Amino acid sequence: MPDSQHTAYEALTVDTLRSRLGTLPAMTDRVGTDPSAWTVEEVGDGNLNLVFIVKGPAGAVVVKQALPYVRLVGESWPLPLTRAYFEYHALTRQAARDPGRVPDVHHFDADQALIVMRYLSPHVILRKSLKAGIRHPGLPGHLGLFLARTLFRGSDLHMDTARRKADLALFAGNVELCDITENLVFSDPYFAAELNRHTSPQLDDAVAALRADRDLKVAAQQLKMAFTAKAETLLHGDLHTGSIMVTPDDSQVIDPEFATYGPFGFDIGMLLANYLMAYFAQAGHEATPAERDGYRTWLLDVTADTWDVFAAEFGRLWRTERTGILHQASLYEDQGDRLAAEQALHHQLDAIWADTWGFCGVEMHRRILGLAHIEEFESIDDPDIRAACERKALVLGRHLAVNRRQIPSIAAVRELAERIEREDLR
Amino acid sequence: MPDSQHTAYEALTVDTLRSRLGTLPAMTDRVGTDPSAWTVEEVGDGNLNLVFIVKGPAGAVVVKQALPYVRLVGESWPLPLTRAYFEYHALTRQAARDPGRVPDVHHFDADQALIVMRYLSPHVILRKSLKAGIRHPGLPGHLGLFLARTLFRGSDLHMDTARRKADLALFAGNVELCDITENLVFSDPYFAAELNRHTSPQLDDAVAALRADRDLKVAAQQLKMAFTAKAETLLHGDLHTGSIMVTPDDSQVIDPEFATYGPFGFDIGMLLANYLMAYFAQAGHEATPAERDGYRTWLLDVTADTWDVFAAEFGRLWRTERTGILHQASLYEDQGDRLAAEQALHHQLDAIWADTWGFCGVEMHRRILGLAHIEEFESIDDPDIRAACERKALVLGRHLAVNRRQIPSIAAVRELAERIEREDLR
Repeated sequence: MPDSQHTAYEALTVDTLRSRLGTLPAMTDRVGTDPSAWTVEEVGDGNLNLVFIVKGPAGAVVVKQALPYVRLVGESWPLPLTRAYFEYHALTRQAARDPGRVPDVHHFDADQALIVMRYLSPHVILRKSLKAGIRHPGLPGHLGLFLARTLFRGSDLHMDTARRKADLALFAGNVELCDITENLVFSDPYFAAELNRHTSPQLDDAVAALRADRDLKVAAQQLKMAFTAKAETLLHGDLHTGSIMVTPDDSQVIDPEFATYGPFGFDIGMLLANYLMAYFAQAGHEATPAERDGYRTWLLDVTADTWDVFAAEFGRLWRTERTGILHQASLYEDQGDRLAAEQALHHQLDAIWADTWGFCGVEMHRRILGLAHIEEFESIDDPDIRAACERKALVLGRHLAVNRRQIPSIAAVRELAERIEREDLR
Repeated sequence: MPDSQHTAYEALTVDTLRSRLGTLPAMTDRVGTDPSAWTVEEVGDGNLNLVFIVKGPAGAVVVKQALPYVRLVGESWPLPLTRAYFEYHALTRQAARDPGRVPDVHHFDADQALIVMRYLSPHVILRKSLKAGIRHPGLPGHLGLFLARTLFRGSDLHMDTARRKADLALFAGNVELCDITENLVFSDPYFAAELNRHTSPQLDDAVAALRADRDLKVAAQQLKMAFTAKAETLLHGDLHTGSIMVTPDDSQVIDPEFATYGPFGFDIGMLLANYLMAYFAQAGHEATPAERDGYRTWLLDVTADTWDVFAAEFGRLWRTERTGILHQASLYEDQGDRLAAEQALHHQLDAIWADTWGFCGVEMHRRILGLAHIEEFESIDDPDIRAACERKALVLGRHLAVNRRQIPSIAAVRELAERIEREDLR
């Protein structure tokens, strides 16, 4: 009889899932005790993993299993199964830090690189809504709070530092997924890397200009160093609009297998970049010009509101949960100097602000010049229209990355995006 | 028969050392095969550990053993034996990165928290020379190169990043020694912490002013965050002039048990602070005023030259050993843009420069206001003279920490130190 504690990894299939997981309480409790009554569907449309939806008389769950390679590329690009371990640990920490914003984990099997988790229904991937022009009023509130709570509560501003250092060490093992970010986000877009692709020949001139742009390339590498060396807090690590599932009332953050310790601004910047790219993609999805102007405005509202909610909640936590080793009350409030805490908060938000726009800028580049593109652009069939949209995002991305320490306000970002969109400012 | 691989920790004594280490090849090879012919002397004058010099017919070694508490304070302040493990790993990495600048390790026993290493002779602790007014012409060359080589080669600028992340995780376990730095350097000096002491009542007004200095306290906490979260490279972690042993021709860096991943500027700033404090201490050690003016000039020369050697060597390594994931040649030189690499180097040195002066400033404070003072000041018997010296260091430290991002040049630091010394500028 095999040791049930250690079973050799084997990828699940639609046919084997019932027999392999049919007696697991996490499954039988939630789906039903008779596996033959389960329906199993494989729905993984991401780049990396197997994702099964299992439904039965008692309900439904999602079974997510890592593959030993990058699904998007194939077995030629091996990727360790340990990413499920990092995803599991990230999900449990995020659930504790912002309850209700990530799917419940019902079961984790390290050997099988497998997580059984809540089936999100009727949720859809946010990116599909942004392409279709659908609004989600709660979105900036949900995500702004999620960012502030997970980022603040995963840092030395809040945590016991021995636990923080232990988590730093744990997530430092997520080498291969960090390597993907390090290469695909910060370096590959800026030279002729093998996996790059772009809308060609329409963007050839823009690509050449970016690859010859010394200030931009140095900025991108400084941001790469910030990503690898500023171990400020536990990041989601891949917080784009394909990692968020939404209903009219709810938002759920999924897929944190890229989790690592990094700078506060990384998750924020990546998210805002994806809103801004959706903004520039609207021209490819409207039947008549200006049809989606209202939706464009909503996307810029979401961008601005997400930052504002983040900053307000970060400030609230700063005043109420600053229990870590940094900026201790013994130095400020306990000496009667409450303004010292506010001064330190402003300086901290100023630093996060600069990083945010830097990461925002490079994310906009890599989604157009690198390996992993986004559906809002990819689904624009006419390459001339697609290239025109993408070019605008490239222009804004360059401005934000290079000038990240001198971006005056969210209103200024918004105005610049609108002028690039309307006037083709470049 | 006990398992020789795992023996319970027991502190060595002068009496038990011969019997306990008498058959260890690392000892018998270097000291002599007959332990009864060994002489054993305990010389630990530091704050933490046992240090034995063992001499015999064949030669001599040092045996350093951690105690399970802080020697300076006693058993009431426990400190884990694992610090010997971190010291061992730091020593081996430093030896590889700057050969010949740290003592050879002959033997390491993790269970006994014990390292057998080279006996440095006729070396003396640098701090004693700085008090006595003795010059060491090679010092800035040795230390400037040591800083550049260990800091550059321990970072993602040079290392394979998987190995760098593994080292980050390894040294993230050095929690308790980092905790000492985090508290004693960055926080305790700026409030009425229990372990603080200062020359009183002479400095009471200066201490009160610093503890009411909002900008300084916020700066100190920002530097604390940089120490805990900017995991740029492997630091020595305690590079003051008591961690350096010298002869007329040689300099050896010892005692890296505080090693951790942190910002490039930390080791540099701590070292320069100790040179500058020695500068301000000279008035307490000269028989007649101005007697040591030449030595004062030499100390400022050492301060300036250490930075200059560091920066020049860092630049040389940047151009010849930039083999890590940051600022890759594929983005710069390989595209024919050699100036991009120089631009990135200047930006990097500018960032290190600011951190350096920040850490320099707080180190000057904690050595006068905190728990661990320095011999150059402590040995000045007249408290009025001692306080006058210390006050000048406090003034310069405040200026450097708060204005760390706007320090124009090493000449400006030098000029300011001279004016504070001569004019009592404050």
